[in-house]
Amino acid sequence: MSSSDIFIGETIGTAILILLGGGVCAAVTLKASKARGAGWLAIALGWGFAVMTAVYISAPLSGAHLNPAVTVGLAIKDGDWSNVPVYFAGEFLGAMIGAALVWVAYYGQFRAHLTDEDVVGDLSARAADTKAVEAREKGAGPVLGVFSTGPEIRNPAQNLATEIVGTFVLIIAVLTQGLNDAGNGLGVLGGLITALVVVSIGLSLGGPTGYAINPARDLGPRIVHALLPLPNKGGSDWTYAWVPVVGPLIGGALAAGVYNLAFA
Amino acid sequence: MSSSDIFIGETIGTAILILLGGGVCAAVTLKASKARGAGWLAIALGWGFAVMTAVYISAPLSGAHLNPAVTVGLAIKDGDWSNVPVYFAGEFLGAMIGAALVWVAYYGQFRAHLTDEDVVGDLSARAADTKAVEAREKGAGPVLGVFSTGPEIRNPAQNLATEIVGTFVLIIAVLTQGLNDAGNGLGVLGGLITALVVVSIGLSLGGPTGYAINPARDLGPRIVHALLPLPNKGGSDWTYAWVPVVGPLIGGALAAGVYNLAFA
Amino acid sequence: MSSSDIFIGETIGTAILILLGGGVCAAVTLKASKARGAGWLAIALGWGFAVMTAVYISAPLSGAHLNPAVTVGLAIKDGDWSNVPVYFAGEFLGAMIGAALVWVAYYGQFRAHLTDEDVVGDLSARAADTKAVEAREKGAGPVLGVFSTGPEIRNPAQNLATEIVGTFVLIIAVLTQGLNDAGNGLGVLGGLITALVVVSIGLSLGGPTGYAINPARDLGPRIVHALLPLPNKGGSDWTYAWVPVVGPLIGGALAAGVYNLAFA
Amino acid sequence: MSSSDIFIGETIGTAILILLGGGVCAAVTLKASKARGAGWLAIALGWGFAVMTAVYISAPLSGAHLNPAVTVGLAIKDGDWSNVPVYFAGEFLGAMIGAALVWVAYYGQFRAHLTDEDVVGDLSARAADTKAVEAREKGAGPVLGVFSTGPEIRNPAQNLATEIVGTFVLIIAVLTQGLNDAGNGLGVLGGLITALVVVSIGLSLGGPTGYAINPARDLGPRIVHALLPLPNKGGSDWTYAWVPVVGPLIGGALAAGVYNLAFA
Repeated sequence: MSSSDIFIGETIGTAILILLGGGVCAAVTLKASKARGAGWLAIALGWGFAVMTAVYISAPLSGAHLNPAVTVGLAIKDGDWSNVPVYFAGEFLGAMIGAALVWVAYYGQFRAHLTDEDVVGDLSARAADTKAVEAREKGAGPVLGVFSTGPEIRNPAQNLATEIVGTFVLIIAVLTQGLNDAGNGLGVLGGLITALVVVSIGLSLGGPTGYAINPARDLGPRIVHALLPLPNKGGSDWTYAWVPVVGPLIGGALAAGVYNLAFA
Repeated sequence: MSSSDIFIGETIGTAILILLGGGVCAAVTLKASKARGAGWLAIALGWGFAVMTAVYISAPLSGAHLNPAVTVGLAIKDGDWSNVPVYFAGEFLGAMIGAALVWVAYYGQFRAHLTDEDVVGDLSARAADTKAVEAREKGAGPVLGVFSTGPEIRNPAQNLATEIVGTFVLIIAVLTQGLNDAGNGLGVLGGLITALVVVSIGLSLGGPTGYAINPARDLGPRIVHALLPLPNKGGSDWTYAWVPVVGPLIGGALAAGVYNLAFA
Repeated sequence: MSSSDIFIGETIGTAILILLGGGVCAAVTLKASKARGAGWLAIALGWGFAVMTAVYISAPLSGAHLNPAVTVGLAIKDGDWSNVPVYFAGEFLGAMIGAALVWVAYYGQFRAHLTDEDVVGDLSARAADTKAVEAREKGAGPVLGVFSTGPEIRNPAQNLATEIVGTFVLIIAVLTQGLNDAGNGLGVLGGLITALVVVSIGLSLGGPTGYAINPARDLGPRIVHALLPLPNKGGSDWTYAWVPVVGPLIGGALAAGVYNLAFA
Repeated sequence: MSSSDIFIGETIGTAILILLGGGVCAAVTLKASKARGAGWLAIALGWGFAVMTAVYISAPLSGAHLNPAVTVGLAIKDGDWSNVPVYFAGEFLGAMIGAALVWVAYYGQFRAHLTDEDVVGDLSARAADTKAVEAREKGAGPVLGVFSTGPEIRNPAQNLATEIVGTFVLIIAVLTQGLNDAGNGLGVLGGLITALVVVSIGLSLGGPTGYAINPARDLGPRIVHALLPLPNKGGSDWTYAWVPVVGPLIGGALAAGVYNLAFA
């Protein structure tokens, strides 16, 4: 594949991944959305089918990494890092475009949610409260959650461990399923299987941290959250931002190591 | 394919699509339905499997467009508009037949719902209220929603943007997955993948407007709603009717343009 | 296929279909079940995956009809009725075995449910009430529903229409997807697609009558319900029993007719 | 396959199966999990996709039994018991590793749950109560349920029957679908179909006992539960532990017998 095909494929693919993935978070959590309250199963299926859609669209151009942890895992497996920079560039640019498109598609819902008396009143009433100010800096309720992940219990070592375990499962599945090469014969079924692996990780390992398992999926939209002119949006929780970047990269590297030892 | 095969295939296929798609809306929202309250996930899965069922039935005859936005997208991609009129005719006729079949299958539920004291009483009590009259003209609660889409927040530019984004994802997925030609080898898996793309769009981008993403799916049943002798059915919301027709056509054309630039 | 293979395959396959299909109804409705209250989506998915499981198990022996409406549809399509009796025999025997196995697997739950003070007390308190006696003869709450279908609104013509429409969709899908012959290349994917068609019918057309769409699925378990020694089980609702037998047979015949006109 | 490949494949595969399967139980039941309360459908889908993920990862190394009942069923079918010990060793070791990984990924949630005033207070208040002490020895609420299964109604013969029926369905499906050999042409689709069979068994037959249907899945994590330093974790319910070991082995053997009689 040419570098321009890789860059275009990863940019379009990751944009669609984040548009659909962030979209389901918006759909389930924001006011004035028909899907509000559809629950965790809807979120896990929504992210899985987001992966599936993005993979089949971008696979012909770039092989559909859509995730720096996949790129790193494949680079370690193949011992070839030459295309890593262009993959990373497309992945992060695409993630930012996708997050902006969520804002376009749900503009009215963001406005309705963030000007809602309950949400705003709740935040104002607690304005003198140190904990409330801190919470606000970390993002006003679900709004940051449309863009990026956050832990239920804030403990960096613990949260890092959860992200490492979740990403390990994703990358060992990607490497053994041969999604990105013709090694094991899954062929066109690979995109669907990988999507259902992501559903599995979401259902089973998403409870503690919201399963970033993809540095671009978390950091790109966090930057967009920081830049977008959303009233009352609260902070972007930068103190946590390194966990869903570092954890997935470690998990991907570990999976590639295990793959090279046990499966290659 | 012959024109008559195309017309018959699109008519049967779109009728089944709307029978099953409108059916799940009736099942989840009308009184005296066993599925009442099953929620948005049931609706999104129901529409997706409706697409899957209709695609596999009609594909041998007409290639299973079932959607004028698909027809336009493929015409732009291929530069061939010769069959567009016969596709459009089958799609709109099929959509109207399907909506009438929903009325047949749920006749008792429509009657029970529209003669229910709570629904009717609520409407009567508010009869002098301008807002209530306006709401009634736009359709009595969920009844119009069984036939056609409507926005949670009424803002034509915003609603149009959401429909454009959602349809763009559908059509770029259809074009790259080669559902309608043998280009990329998805083969018989294509109908299932396309169905899951529609589930994805429903879960992720359906919150603001109910994801028409198909002019025939919205306009055909709206005409049937206007014609059917349902007591207390309310208006057919014609002021909104252009949005789910124009938005999907723009989204489909944009997707075909991007496809021709980046993928062809 | 030999007659004995057909008989054994249909008996085993339909037994597994009804064990799993009746099982999900028991799981979602009976007391002391971990799945109680899981809702209509669980029921629709449960019946769909029941079909899938039974189809893949029995397909090598009998081609996996598992439904007299399928058998009739294929006989009309092929103009060959020679094997119809042996298919019918296996289908009805298997359905009865499957219903008995649900009783084995959920024996404790049936006992807990039918000796529950609320259920029994409610029935006793209403014993002098004509309507309550009538209701009891039609089955004590969900217990008959584990075995056979019943309408939300009792109107034979209406209920028949709904069963005809639902079965028409199933049989036209089976005939065009070539599940039972090698006609259109779905191949091994056919069992999964057919299962998801059944999920679609359940979500979209199951609301009014509970979608029997299969005479053996309804009549076989109804006979077992009448025979099983379940205390307080109530009546087997024989006045409705003809609807889910006749409706599916009409729907299947109509689908075969349309298939022969439009697709053959 | 070499013995070392079998051992490594079964160990990695079963570890991932239990990590994801136990994970979804933790996600849905423990405090401070984003998926808390997602319900039985989430659990059934979560275990199914856990099977799918583990099967595709381990199939190239060991054929992906991941379950002593599968190993026994295939040994009876093929008349070859030579590799059974190494399969069993990998399956039980993997199950223990997987259960420990659930503890790693949900460490904070276990702590939050088991130090929660409601849970602990409830247990303390009932400390003098014989039934409460007995319940505590059987595991504090959902915590043992993250590791191992337990019946809703405790009746060994009844519970055994339910586990036999559920496992029979799984093993007859595995044998006829040719997941572990190339017999019937399901090929790479086999892992997905088997996963959906497990979803089906969970939805339809999981209500009474929680569907162990796999001795390693239940006994391995039960040992880990007994060993892990979790405060207030309660007992490991050893009096029930034989049921989900013996039942699945009987069910698997029965299925192999039926397979050899009817299908071979």
